[in-house]
Amino acid sequence: MKEKKKIEVCLSPALYKEYENENAIVVVTDILRASSAIVAAFMNGAKKIIPVGTLEEAKAMKEAGYMVAAERDGIVRDFADFGNSPFNFTPERVKNNDIVYSTTNGTQAIQLASSGKQVLVGAFLNIEAIVKYLIAKNDEVLVLCAGWKNKFCLEDTLMAGAVVDELLKTDGFYTICDSALAAQDLWRIAKDDLVAYVQKAAQRTRLKLNNLDDVIEYCHTLNQTSIVPILEEDYLVSLKL
Amino acid sequence: MKEKKKIEVCLSPALYKEYENENAIVVVTDILRASSAIVAAFMNGAKKIIPVGTLEEAKAMKEAGYMVAAERDGIVRDFADFGNSPFNFTPERVKNNDIVYSTTNGTQAIQLASSGKQVLVGAFLNIEAIVKYLIAKNDEVLVLCAGWKNKFCLEDTLMAGAVVDELLKTDGFYTICDSALAAQDLWRIAKDDLVAYVQKAAQRTRLKLNNLDDVIEYCHTLNQTSIVPILEEDYLVSLKL
Repeated sequence: MKEKKKIEVCLSPALYKEYENENAIVVVTDILRASSAIVAAFMNGAKKIIPVGTLEEAKAMKEAGYMVAAERDGIVRDFADFGNSPFNFTPERVKNNDIVYSTTNGTQAIQLASSGKQVLVGAFLNIEAIVKYLIAKNDEVLVLCAGWKNKFCLEDTLMAGAVVDELLKTDGFYTICDSALAAQDLWRIAKDDLVAYVQKAAQRTRLKLNNLDDVIEYCHTLNQTSIVPILEEDYLVSLKL
Repeated sequence: MKEKKKIEVCLSPALYKEYENENAIVVVTDILRASSAIVAAFMNGAKKIIPVGTLEEAKAMKEAGYMVAAERDGIVRDFADFGNSPFNFTPERVKNNDIVYSTTNGTQAIQLASSGKQVLVGAFLNIEAIVKYLIAKNDEVLVLCAGWKNKFCLEDTLMAGAVVDELLKTDGFYTICDSALAAQDLWRIAKDDLVAYVQKAAQRTRLKLNNLDDVIEYCHTLNQTSIVPILEEDYLVSLKL
């Protein structure tokens, strides 16, 4: 009988050092909106996505000729080609292109996660593919929620809970991690009407204030693709399952 | 009509600076076991409880003649009079005494919270009294979960959720804090059989390993007292409602 592998969930990048695990595949999730946008970009044919933490780096990459997506607090930066709505990453813009990407929460979380064994980008859009990949690998799993400026976010936690729930249905995994158990229970409450549930989340309010809430429904749609974005050195490529 | 006051929940001391609020009454909770033990100590007649962060401070206070409760990872320290089981704080030991207290998570959380408007210590044992006090004051509320070495803990989150749930039943409070909403939902799942629910939490496993799990049921018993421990300068006193 094979050994069961542990699953943990880290609810904020500010807690990452308590959960950091070089033996784990780290799934980074930032549902609203970076991880959903990254998945959408690969669906539309992007070749590489280069996550950068700071706006300075993003600006320098723009000057070096890259196409750059960059936002802070949901607002696109003036030097950038576009912001981080998944709808911005159209085939016309991204097909066969390398995109530099910098966001308020998600891209820093990807950089943080790079101490793990592998880094995947997970969204509801590709959750089944993420789960399949994790089951096939049967390594330890850590889901890192990007959160909002280090605060806990409901929508990222629900995504983590969905991954936990699916993995625990197999024989290959176990958890005694309190955040994994809590995330799983929250997912079970929310899953039958995910969009209704996340209406109450704070990020929804923030997006609405900035008229950016058109992406909510799309970002909570399950299984639109079997693409798994995976970090290679310092950029993401897409693995098609 | 009076203005509604906001409620927030901070799930770990490591996230405290994101939630810190000098206008809020901070309720510190460390169900297993510091906040339950502090409430029990006051129930048994303790005069003051002096929370200290480090074992060095605790040891120095012992040498200065204080009665000292001190543990790390659940294990009582050899220089101390006793550890942090609520059952240790017997009337024979604590009545009319000042007790110095240092624990793995809880006492540091109390010190951290001292930037708030007031600091209360909340446990299931005194939850109704805590809620009554908060409703009477009608200030902003922040519940700080002590967690386990900066990790998220289920039992502290459930306590936070119970406070949120009760306060939101009144007209005086609102929340758009994702951790408050999540904690409330977890509490609603757990409340009908709290002890059964927390069986799955990690801290339960840790206590069991060290034969310290005799306190689980007691620490999850509601409303055994109307005492509210409150921080005055650098020590706790009991307020009887």
